[in-house]
Amino acid sequence: MARYEIATIAGDGIGPEVTRAAIRVLTEACGREALEFAMRPGGAAHYTRSGAVLPDDTFAACRDMHAILHGAAGLPEVTYPDGTEVGNDLHLRLRFWLDLYANVRPIQLLPGVRSPLAGVEPGGIDYVIVRENTEGLYASRGAGVLLRGEFASDTLVVTRKGTERVARFAFDLARKRTGAPRDGRRRVTVCDKANILRSYAFFRAVCTEVAADYPDVAIDYAYADAITVHLLKRPDFYDVIVAENMFGDVISDLGAATVGGMGIAPSGEIGDGHGLFQGAHGSAPDIAGQGVASPLATILSGALMLRWLGERHADPALGEAAARVEAAVDAVLAGGAAVPYDQGGSAGCETVTEAVCRALR
Amino acid sequence: MARYEIATIAGDGIGPEVTRAAIRVLTEACGREALEFAMRPGGAAHYTRSGAVLPDDTFAACRDMHAILHGAAGLPEVTYPDGTEVGNDLHLRLRFWLDLYANVRPIQLLPGVRSPLAGVEPGGIDYVIVRENTEGLYASRGAGVLLRGEFASDTLVVTRKGTERVARFAFDLARKRTGAPRDGRRRVTVCDKANILRSYAFFRAVCTEVAADYPDVAIDYAYADAITVHLLKRPDFYDVIVAENMFGDVISDLGAATVGGMGIAPSGEIGDGHGLFQGAHGSAPDIAGQGVASPLATILSGALMLRWLGERHADPALGEAAARVEAAVDAVLAGGAAVPYDQGGSAGCETVTEAVCRALR
Ligand SMILES: CC(C)[C@H](C(=O)O)[C@@H](O)C(=O)O
Ligand SMILES: CC(C)[C@H](C(=O)O)[C@@H](O)C(=O)O
Repeated sequence: MARYEIATIAGDGIGPEVTRAAIRVLTEACGREALEFAMRPGGAAHYTRSGAVLPDDTFAACRDMHAILHGAAGLPEVTYPDGTEVGNDLHLRLRFWLDLYANVRPIQLLPGVRSPLAGVEPGGIDYVIVRENTEGLYASRGAGVLLRGEFASDTLVVTRKGTERVARFAFDLARKRTGAPRDGRRRVTVCDKANILRSYAFFRAVCTEVAADYPDVAIDYAYADAITVHLLKRPDFYDVIVAENMFGDVISDLGAATVGGMGIAPSGEIGDGHGLFQGAHGSAPDIAGQGVASPLATILSGALMLRWLGERHADPALGEAAARVEAAVDAVLAGGAAVPYDQGGSAGCETVTEAVCRALR
Repeated sequence: MARYEIATIAGDGIGPEVTRAAIRVLTEACGREALEFAMRPGGAAHYTRSGAVLPDDTFAACRDMHAILHGAAGLPEVTYPDGTEVGNDLHLRLRFWLDLYANVRPIQLLPGVRSPLAGVEPGGIDYVIVRENTEGLYASRGAGVLLRGEFASDTLVVTRKGTERVARFAFDLARKRTGAPRDGRRRVTVCDKANILRSYAFFRAVCTEVAADYPDVAIDYAYADAITVHLLKRPDFYDVIVAENMFGDVISDLGAATVGGMGIAPSGEIGDGHGLFQGAHGSAPDIAGQGVASPLATILSGALMLRWLGERHADPALGEAAARVEAAVDAVLAGGAAVPYDQGGSAGCETVTEAVCRALR
């Protein structure tokens, strides 16, 4: 294995605890030499102290190192005068400044995890949401119009370039997925409201054009309202879903909820040159510092990071380490001895981390 | 009972069958003299024949009569050149032209209905989503920018007036709700993404101002992504939810899915002067004319119509008739003798309608 520098931002709330946990597990999986976690400040608390939510040095590290690992950022009481949250800006700036256009959310029911859906077994839910991460409604963040307390507006932007690249990402991902596809063919589902808005109809049209280059992958379509029904009623239908930023945001939380919640859902935000990895959950300041947060989402995001680094640097040892981390998490969950609070158990952050490390050895 | 004229648009796909069913049940409940169902053409099929999705006469009837009953409109292959669906325009025009600003979606798990959520019992889900229905992202329908196949945009609009009135509607509705509130106090939850966009932060701020006039009703907040998790994990927490148009669209389908799906979910779209009632489902052309569609969503929407008419015209007999229709539907579902296909039974549209009529007698 070569050596990789990871720009690491612990952030707010439970961010530091889950980041520490992921560092321990990833170090255990790859050895002390392979990964260097370069800790950098950032987040809402840092903003209140320093005025910078994402200090220049932190941004430079994120830009220049091999990957970014992030705990979580945000404190609900730390807002800008327009009412939006400061902490989210850390995240949004990294997304936009580093052009992390594909937000990848694997939705997978792991062994030992109980879905809130009746009658669903592990293996019964296994799809990936690819959320467009740099345009859509989010293009308008910080740029909405607010007039005399009477009127506000924001703009939903869909470009051909932005849609093409995220659609290609989704189709490429579909091709790479392992396990037998349901109907003998991999599938990408385009989630939009093409029936109502031109920008969504355009999103759909561009995805359909891209599909022509992937004759081996099926394409289908679902409206953003209707897909919420399908994700409850026939989650096993889905393979890869691609969606505009805001819809992707909403349905990836919904998907996560069906497989055990945000505390176990990993996320990777990937551009052509950079990758940011963190759990899908927020900073949960209400439970911060109590040791009860689950580190699993961050640990599994770390595994996504290893796999991405491995592909990018043609370093198969990293892909193998990723698989070992995932297997260790599966073993811990299936074993039932160190079940985190959010999964109905009573194992704290440390205990779960220790159990994953033990399973890794 | 006085006599009420109901502008009735059967529409496309299963629209005609479910409309017929609702007319039968409502007539049974109120007697032949109370309601006159004035059938008017409209929808995607009518558009292909005549060029008008909502003919002037139909619109005039909707504007001038006491209420509007609608089956469903839309055929996926009938689209405008920009890719959006023609059939939806019927619905959208009525919403916008008649200023039907509150889209009311009761989410209630009825006896005998199985939720896809594990361990939820009838009574365990009982809240109402109030979707702002005339602005938000939908303000942009038909008005998005589309440039040279390279760029598309739509605008999300939030006004003080539009938000105030729908917030008041939600708080008034909370006050009117019966049944013991969870924490001894009724509650309105504001669903937005105030953390990201100015327009959503503005929506939240205006709702919060309105809340000051309702000290007896609690207010709380949920981000649109996070609420999808809560609606699966603790649906019993919710009482009334108010949301911007597009988020309201998405979460009302999600809510419906948790209580048996679109085939059983009623909807009322209400303005200061008009009310439009129809099932939450679409026109389902794939099953049209086979007699397998469930009429229950339309029948229950008819009950909402009766209750609204009753309040509006101070005619308590209508409210009583509404309660009888709902009780009849409950009895049919709980009885298990005429369970519609979408609820796992094998009773067709006619059989279910007949059973509801029998229960009413
Ligand atoms: C933290 C915030 C910026 C974010 C978003 O809205 O995208 C979060 O909800 C997510 O899903 O990553
Ligand atoms: C039919 C269509 C206009 C509609 C919408 O998008 O609002 C539908 O999804 C709804 O929920 O009423």
